[in-house]
Amino acid sequence: MTSVPDAVFDALTAIVGAAHVLRDDDAMTHYQTDWTGRFVGHGPAVVRPASCDEVAAVLAVCDARRVAVVPQGGNTGLVGGSVPLLGEIVLSLTRLDGLGEVDGVGAQVTAGAGVTLARLQEHAAVADLAYGVDLAARDSATVGGTIATNAGGMHLLRYGGTRQQVVGVEAVLADGRTLRHLGGLVKDNTGYDLPALLCGSEGTLAVVTAARLRLVPRYEEQVVAVLGFDGIAPAVEAVARWRRVLPSLDAAELFLADGLDLVRRSFELPAPLPTDWPVYVLVEASDHVDPTDALSNLVSNESTVRDAAVATDTTRRTELWQYREKHTLAINQLGPPHKLDVTLPLREVAGFIEQVPGRVASVAPEAHTWLFGHVGDGNIHVNVTGVEPGDERVDDAVLRLVAELGGSISAEHGIGSAKRRWLHLNRSAAEIDAFRAIKHALDPNGILNPHVLLPDP
Amino acid sequence: MTSVPDAVFDALTAIVGAAHVLRDDDAMTHYQTDWTGRFVGHGPAVVRPASCDEVAAVLAVCDARRVAVVPQGGNTGLVGGSVPLLGEIVLSLTRLDGLGEVDGVGAQVTAGAGVTLARLQEHAAVADLAYGVDLAARDSATVGGTIATNAGGMHLLRYGGTRQQVVGVEAVLADGRTLRHLGGLVKDNTGYDLPALLCGSEGTLAVVTAARLRLVPRYEEQVVAVLGFDGIAPAVEAVARWRRVLPSLDAAELFLADGLDLVRRSFELPAPLPTDWPVYVLVEASDHVDPTDALSNLVSNESTVRDAAVATDTTRRTELWQYREKHTLAINQLGPPHKLDVTLPLREVAGFIEQVPGRVASVAPEAHTWLFGHVGDGNIHVNVTGVEPGDERVDDAVLRLVAELGGSISAEHGIGSAKRRWLHLNRSAAEIDAFRAIKHALDPNGILNPHVLLPDP
Repeated sequence: MTSVPDAVFDALTAIVGAAHVLRDDDAMTHYQTDWTGRFVGHGPAVVRPASCDEVAAVLAVCDARRVAVVPQGGNTGLVGGSVPLLGEIVLSLTRLDGLGEVDGVGAQVTAGAGVTLARLQEHAAVADLAYGVDLAARDSATVGGTIATNAGGMHLLRYGGTRQQVVGVEAVLADGRTLRHLGGLVKDNTGYDLPALLCGSEGTLAVVTAARLRLVPRYEEQVVAVLGFDGIAPAVEAVARWRRVLPSLDAAELFLADGLDLVRRSFELPAPLPTDWPVYVLVEASDHVDPTDALSNLVSNESTVRDAAVATDTTRRTELWQYREKHTLAINQLGPPHKLDVTLPLREVAGFIEQVPGRVASVAPEAHTWLFGHVGDGNIHVNVTGVEPGDERVDDAVLRLVAELGGSISAEHGIGSAKRRWLHLNRSAAEIDAFRAIKHALDPNGILNPHVLLPDP
Repeated sequence: MTSVPDAVFDALTAIVGAAHVLRDDDAMTHYQTDWTGRFVGHGPAVVRPASCDEVAAVLAVCDARRVAVVPQGGNTGLVGGSVPLLGEIVLSLTRLDGLGEVDGVGAQVTAGAGVTLARLQEHAAVADLAYGVDLAARDSATVGGTIATNAGGMHLLRYGGTRQQVVGVEAVLADGRTLRHLGGLVKDNTGYDLPALLCGSEGTLAVVTAARLRLVPRYEEQVVAVLGFDGIAPAVEAVARWRRVLPSLDAAELFLADGLDLVRRSFELPAPLPTDWPVYVLVEASDHVDPTDALSNLVSNESTVRDAAVATDTTRRTELWQYREKHTLAINQLGPPHKLDVTLPLREVAGFIEQVPGRVASVAPEAHTWLFGHVGDGNIHVNVTGVEPGDERVDDAVLRLVAELGGSISAEHGIGSAKRRWLHLNRSAAEIDAFRAIKHALDPNGILNPHVLLPDP
């Protein structure tokens, strides 16, 4: 896949225009390096189509010439799934940024693959609605990229992940044929669920060019609290109980004393609570009527909550959220981290958090293990700093522990190129064979993201 | 596929035992005729395995001999998808009726394919939880069958359809290989979403043998109201508004004066409201705190609601639900109906209901068109009586009108054998080709439900 004939570039230029076939190294850098700096690719070109038809024409050319392609949205992925690690052409979808009118009765909107989550949220807010998936990377992350990775985000607890938001997709198969089903009908049993199949397929089956998305009510009353706990287990159990009785709960985020300390030092923030605790949970609830009393009642009846800071006004809520959201940036400042995003069964979360630093230290004594995540779903982000980017002993140790405890080696980031050698820890040979069969059925020449998700045969 | 060698029956008998290979016509009748009486099949045998391993062994035998198989759950399907119309062997899954312990913290349970929805609900209720999908056919409909058809049911408005409940599946491919992923992790991006792909695949891709299912809170406070409207459009609009502000709304069911009249005569029921109205909507809300005031406030502020009967106690709530639930039975007593289950965009529901009786009358003047459905989702059940079961002019007229209005020809019943000649009304050639490619990838010999979903090439 390394040598691409000039005729291909001529054909691509004829489709998207010379300004949108980037071949200069400087111009391509932004598209070839992932934002953590861990994954650096190099391909012959970056192609930036502006419409579904242009995507279809580009793919038809590439498929006919067996030229591999990496689809790319905001390039905020964390597993090396959207940079050209094997010399692929980058297919950037950011110019597909059309946004349809919000359907207020049906609570839906059609968005191009290149629309950022931040723009989508603003657009929905005008109709007094919101998009159910929200991420710290919202200013860059795109609709297409979040569909490809089935992104979860801050509010998965309440609204589900991206797959639960996607009512229909427009997507182009490897050979350039377009699948378009954007009618927005929620009940529609007319064949296999291609949107669900494409969600989380990491660009290996088709290139999503637009989607019909479900919107959720926009609640004007919101409360955020940061709670201090003595340990992980009581925090996990408290959140599990609250979920059942507080439907307005839309986030429950865990962080630990060392992560808080790093964030505070990096961004010069005051302590959220008067006393230090080993374990913190940020909870958010939102509703049409002020949920502060409902949340405060639950919190004050929970004996394991040792202290609480409650915020209802926007400024103070944003301040509290910073303690959680700034973890990623603060950790990145220490150098490219190994980022392992895993899910544990709820009953195993405490044991995992207890054991994982030791497992990491056993293979990399100089490393530091940072742990935070979405505790309502058992989703823990393991960030390890102080280890060479290419040293996979740490990843191996963490992922094996996850598998031992019945967890998933990828909660929301996906497999990408980073984790495919460990896919067998979670998936049987029969499952991987079934994945391969589906991949081959839709992309027989294997041009779409060939270095992603599926292990080499 | 008509002549099955004796060696196959011997092999099947060796796997499941002689008592569970039915070949006698009387014994097979129950499995070969669908419950509406419209679809009558005839195959050489009914095989009733008791475990996933037995299913795998049965399929391996059938695949090796190219013997076609129809998987069957409670046989409550409505589109001829689970009876042997082309002489297939029926693979009955009702003996796979194991039910795991409810995980109260994670709110999940593992259920065998043969577990009925009624039994699942009872089992979940012991742990103070419920299953989000509920149907009038709950005493017969099974977990496996509702997954194969992606059943929606009464509470889709609130909890989504079956696809939204299925966290993992155990399924056997046509060649007997088993895919098993029942860990119940909600955030798990480790490959293609096979559960979502199998939901709604109508037994054409694999045979589901068990599933890990999400459970929802069981709300002890419930209110049901039957409301009278002057027309369809105000009813649709009122429900759309209420959805946004009343998260405890879990059903909104439409029925019309003629349907109510039929139900009342068939079951000797009193009128729900003192005066007759052309359009009725039954709404249900449930919550931890009594939702009666919240619902009553909305209803009394909605000027288009002409009258309301509100019920909070169990007996009266059940009485009100009868007006909607008994439609199916009352209509079936008139003879096998043509049942068309369609979704319209919300803005087209009123126009559809206005036009459809005329379209039916234009091809079948002697027919009666009964309309009811899940109005929050735009899902209308069109039942036509007084037409021969084999006369498809009625189906053609209704489904073409649906497609003209941008609707789906199958909301929740599926395509089955009944609707596959109309699949092209909703799906492009590229989409159908993609379906075929996926089908061929997972079932290369085409033994699983060959007469279902996909049109003949």
